[in-house]
Amino acid sequence: MKISFKNDYAEGAHPAILEALMKTNLTQQAGYGLDDYSLEAKALIREKIKNPNAKIHFVSGGTQANLLVIAALLRPYESVIADNTAHIADSETGAIEAVGHKIHLAPSINGKITPEDIAHYATCYTNFPHQVKPRLVYITNATEVGTIYTLAELKAIYACCQAHQLLLFMDGARLGAALNAKDNDIQWEDLAQYTDVFYIGATKNGGLLGEAIVINKPALQEGFEYHLKQKGALLAKGRLLGLQFLTLFQNDLYNTLARYANERMQTIKEALAAAGYPFLADTTTNQLFPILPNKSIDILAEKFEFYRWKTIDEEHTAIRLITSWATTPAQVAALTEAIGSL
Amino acid sequence: MKISFKNDYAEGAHPAILEALMKTNLTQQAGYGLDDYSLEAKALIREKIKNPNAKIHFVSGGTQANLLVIAALLRPYESVIADNTAHIADSETGAIEAVGHKIHLAPSINGKITPEDIAHYATCYTNFPHQVKPRLVYITNATEVGTIYTLAELKAIYACCQAHQLLLFMDGARLGAALNAKDNDIQWEDLAQYTDVFYIGATKNGGLLGEAIVINKPALQEGFEYHLKQKGALLAKGRLLGLQFLTLFQNDLYNTLARYANERMQTIKEALAAAGYPFLADTTTNQLFPILPNKSIDILAEKFEFYRWKTIDEEHTAIRLITSWATTPAQVAALTEAIGSL
Amino acid sequence: MKISFKNDYAEGAHPAILEALMKTNLTQQAGYGLDDYSLEAKALIREKIKNPNAKIHFVSGGTQANLLVIAALLRPYESVIADNTAHIADSETGAIEAVGHKIHLAPSINGKITPEDIAHYATCYTNFPHQVKPRLVYITNATEVGTIYTLAELKAIYACCQAHQLLLFMDGARLGAALNAKDNDIQWEDLAQYTDVFYIGATKNGGLLGEAIVINKPALQEGFEYHLKQKGALLAKGRLLGLQFLTLFQNDLYNTLARYANERMQTIKEALAAAGYPFLADTTTNQLFPILPNKSIDILAEKFEFYRWKTIDEEHTAIRLITSWATTPAQVAALTEAIGSL
Amino acid sequence: MKISFKNDYAEGAHPAILEALMKTNLTQQAGYGLDDYSLEAKALIREKIKNPNAKIHFVSGGTQANLLVIAALLRPYESVIADNTAHIADSETGAIEAVGHKIHLAPSINGKITPEDIAHYATCYTNFPHQVKPRLVYITNATEVGTIYTLAELKAIYACCQAHQLLLFMDGARLGAALNAKDNDIQWEDLAQYTDVFYIGATKNGGLLGEAIVINKPALQEGFEYHLKQKGALLAKGRLLGLQFLTLFQNDLYNTLARYANERMQTIKEALAAAGYPFLADTTTNQLFPILPNKSIDILAEKFEFYRWKTIDEEHTAIRLITSWATTPAQVAALTEAIGSL
Repeated sequence: MKISFKNDYAEGAHPAILEALMKTNLTQQAGYGLDDYSLEAKALIREKIKNPNAKIHFVSGGTQANLLVIAALLRPYESVIADNTAHIADSETGAIEAVGHKIHLAPSINGKITPEDIAHYATCYTNFPHQVKPRLVYITNATEVGTIYTLAELKAIYACCQAHQLLLFMDGARLGAALNAKDNDIQWEDLAQYTDVFYIGATKNGGLLGEAIVINKPALQEGFEYHLKQKGALLAKGRLLGLQFLTLFQNDLYNTLARYANERMQTIKEALAAAGYPFLADTTTNQLFPILPNKSIDILAEKFEFYRWKTIDEEHTAIRLITSWATTPAQVAALTEAIGSL
Repeated sequence: MKISFKNDYAEGAHPAILEALMKTNLTQQAGYGLDDYSLEAKALIREKIKNPNAKIHFVSGGTQANLLVIAALLRPYESVIADNTAHIADSETGAIEAVGHKIHLAPSINGKITPEDIAHYATCYTNFPHQVKPRLVYITNATEVGTIYTLAELKAIYACCQAHQLLLFMDGARLGAALNAKDNDIQWEDLAQYTDVFYIGATKNGGLLGEAIVINKPALQEGFEYHLKQKGALLAKGRLLGLQFLTLFQNDLYNTLARYANERMQTIKEALAAAGYPFLADTTTNQLFPILPNKSIDILAEKFEFYRWKTIDEEHTAIRLITSWATTPAQVAALTEAIGSL
Repeated sequence: MKISFKNDYAEGAHPAILEALMKTNLTQQAGYGLDDYSLEAKALIREKIKNPNAKIHFVSGGTQANLLVIAALLRPYESVIADNTAHIADSETGAIEAVGHKIHLAPSINGKITPEDIAHYATCYTNFPHQVKPRLVYITNATEVGTIYTLAELKAIYACCQAHQLLLFMDGARLGAALNAKDNDIQWEDLAQYTDVFYIGATKNGGLLGEAIVINKPALQEGFEYHLKQKGALLAKGRLLGLQFLTLFQNDLYNTLARYANERMQTIKEALAAAGYPFLADTTTNQLFPILPNKSIDILAEKFEFYRWKTIDEEHTAIRLITSWATTPAQVAALTEAIGSL
Repeated sequence: MKISFKNDYAEGAHPAILEALMKTNLTQQAGYGLDDYSLEAKALIREKIKNPNAKIHFVSGGTQANLLVIAALLRPYESVIADNTAHIADSETGAIEAVGHKIHLAPSINGKITPEDIAHYATCYTNFPHQVKPRLVYITNATEVGTIYTLAELKAIYACCQAHQLLLFMDGARLGAALNAKDNDIQWEDLAQYTDVFYIGATKNGGLLGEAIVINKPALQEGFEYHLKQKGALLAKGRLLGLQFLTLFQNDLYNTLARYANERMQTIKEALAAAGYPFLADTTTNQLFPILPNKSIDILAEKFEFYRWKTIDEEHTAIRLITSWATTPAQVAALTEAIGSL
């Protein structure tokens, strides 16, 4: 059996979550997200981000979170601006278009969008009423290529959005990895200040499933539950989601797990760097995209699972390696050893 | 703390499911429903219904299952026929209309629709192209009021559907309760023969979440995975759904749990009948709708939770009682005792 | 060739409209509704209804007007209340559901809805977030069965809507017929006061095509042009619509044509009443639904075209007769004569 | 009053059309496209393209035609490939996304797409089920920049579509201009052979409004009328559309008008070429995009209306000039004279 570095959702849940499920299993609770665990978890998150007015909703996955937020916030003629590596652009089977909205694709700089490109769309798409009206900027942190936004970048983007009456929505499927990268300078409370809506991914950071959508601005909160139910996202046993976030936000577990995953990847990164391999982007999260000779890749592939991400030239390919809370030091050692022997 | 007979999703999961989650937790598996547990669970279900050609998809909840099936099977101008107690009609925030389809509401006879009413819609809505084209009949078993379809009724409805080129879709959020009612004569394999699509609800019968959509007819199976992903229903850790169905369909656990829940309710029913109370409908599943004096209801409400379902007259109301796999004999005894003391 | 009393759109346009088209044909005008004729026509209508703040949009037909208004005014989880004869319910191929909204059907009293039924839906559909939120009441004047609303009825409905935070939308495909019925007491300016949105139908009252959507309340006006363009309703040569409304609202032509059509029908009504035939509803507009013996209907059908509307009993059927601005006195005389000879 | 070369829809209709409207005005006809004129016009078009099996539908405008065809032909998870100048991409307020479909944008070569780019999308978007499935190629002839497809190009694109199970849809808002360009080698009957669906624009070639959608392949024809009605595109007085196409396809009027418009533009082109101005693309239709010094543009703008299309450098801009059937030789002479005097 090969060891998988293919993604961060290959295992089940962190043991603390399974334990909590066991312990609370027979307690009767209200349905549809009105259970005690969900209410407590939401209180913890509001505290964490220091926004007592945030409205929080737990959903099952990232695509669901993305389509719900965008469908709820936009009028039918409004559009989304995203960079061209955006998950909503190419990896969600047209979920955003399926709820009626166009996505404008800006160039990607290491998985990130710039205020300049946002401003370009905001000012160019103005041929009323023949063109859609850009209304929301979608960013991802950590990005699709494992990089992170700096606080300065986030502030600049948010200021640009404010200047152009655009909403800022951050996809946080890997938010833990971003906020716990060694060079990160964004704090949890910054998310409340410099985004309109963001979500906290648990699926890829210790949970069985679950993303916590946080709507910071009261003006954007109305009626979201209707959308949840209408789109089939409201679980009868909402306790399942609530309890996971409760567990993850007690004792700082969410941060701890993400930091752990990042550190495992840093060990791998050092081994690769030591061996002289370059990277597609300089990442400090749980994703790494080293560029290797195809022959070396074939050798690694005998023992390990990973994606071949991008052809670099005839003899080189960038692969994607991912660690998670479940990656063991032994698994990392097996990989670094194999790298050393190439 | 009151004892809840309010619904069948107040507790977590059957212990066997939590155990299975524990045991498999650190095994690495492929994502998005391609894990071993999902594949095995699908094989078991296909065997159970004796339809090797069935295509099966696991989703998170009933509304999600309903909107997915209807969105996938219908062309934009096609409509749904349902009886007026249908869950899709009044309890899913317009999810079906939100994916573009009209629902024709037929009269309900104890939660059931008749071939005559189906034929009425199929033959009346024919003012091409000014009227939608009825294309799918939606039924629920057990019904919203706890009754069940007989095999003869199901066959008659299916024959009517075939005669009018209509698809038959059975909502099985409480399918276990129906198939394990003492007067049921529908077998699992009948579902493969006399429906086009149906689903098997686990959320209300032992699972944390999960409905298994079974598409019987190969002609209807194409591209369903696209719909799953586009509507945000494809879980990264599909293993969570697969493992639950695997557990429920091993050793006949699914049937056992449903039978258990039904039996608990029969005990309650006998107590109420013995005390001379009438029922809204004669049910043999895990739902009961006794009609009680309002004063008695107030007394019961001090110790128990349940829904006041329907005002009968100034002094009487029908309440809804529900049992589940988690209802203990002690809880039932507490209720029957309270009934006896009224 | 039979004489048709089948509908009010069997001929082309009133000659004054064709004349105006000829006269202005080669004048260069801006496209997309920014032509001088459209601007002038809108000014005339605003004056007519005494609402200088009304925003007016010309579209091609009634279904288009209905789906545009409802799509523009409602959030995805909001629904429409209408009586069960509503054109949007059964004669528009699910156009409202296709843009995502459920229609609640209230009983119809001579084609009309009552404040009581509106209040019923507004107060019953409140199981948040499991049920849609009623938000708009759709009425038609003249109704589908040729009757009209009184001012008192309209005021009562509007007051009810205001009390329940519901918008009132009047389908005026046959508004001319209503406002020019001999027993009508609604003035043009009442439409500005007692509806939120209404439209003025020209297709059935002298135009080649065209309905003028009037949005009375500024709060509801934003962005409507985007919807027009997005739904394919914005004509490049908007002058075609503008010029027709300009012609119809000069010299009171719109009212004159509608009054003429109504009077033709009154003559027919008198002939039928004199001969002792009952009517499905007592109408004073250009629609009449007399109940006749089937044998008599067969005789009339040899010379005239009309719809057989509703089976009354084995020997009687209600037929639908319609007149228009184009119906000649000679055509009426032919029909009354035929009636007399039955 | 300035002379407008801004677009080809500044005037009304060709006089022959107004005449036909006058002559047939009081003839009673069936509604909703079942009138004699529509039936005759369809027969003429089928004959013209030598496809007796084509199904033809008349609609009011190009955006309406585009969204109807794409909504009718595609399943919810299927997408469109177009070049990045496509009208559906930037000038229709997201009409295609509003009916649920993603548009992949390929590079544009003079307004045209290449088989290579089509094949790229068809072969790259295959990450089932995470990516949409490309299903339809949208091209425009004449293109947005006034160029035309050659028969060889059309055949190559169609072959590519066939090879990849893609449908080919040609937007023909300016089809007349294309087929009557002096260097065109596509015949009417080629459209039946080398496209699956196309439409014939009348709005910009003599009509008041109207595009004739031609569905060549019987397998794609089912149920289109439902879509027409559901989207508000079915006119009660369909005669208005039918009669225009009947007039335009009698005596070759459609071709004659388009050729006339093209010739007017060729005169202008020669004047500009003689004066040494370059063009954005080499066009032979009724659109021209000369690049002029900004000062010269300002001078022309005193007497003429046109769009400033694209900034070339600090001192030069490409403008768009358009002629139509209504452009007079005198108007052309005024412009060429002004060009000569620059």
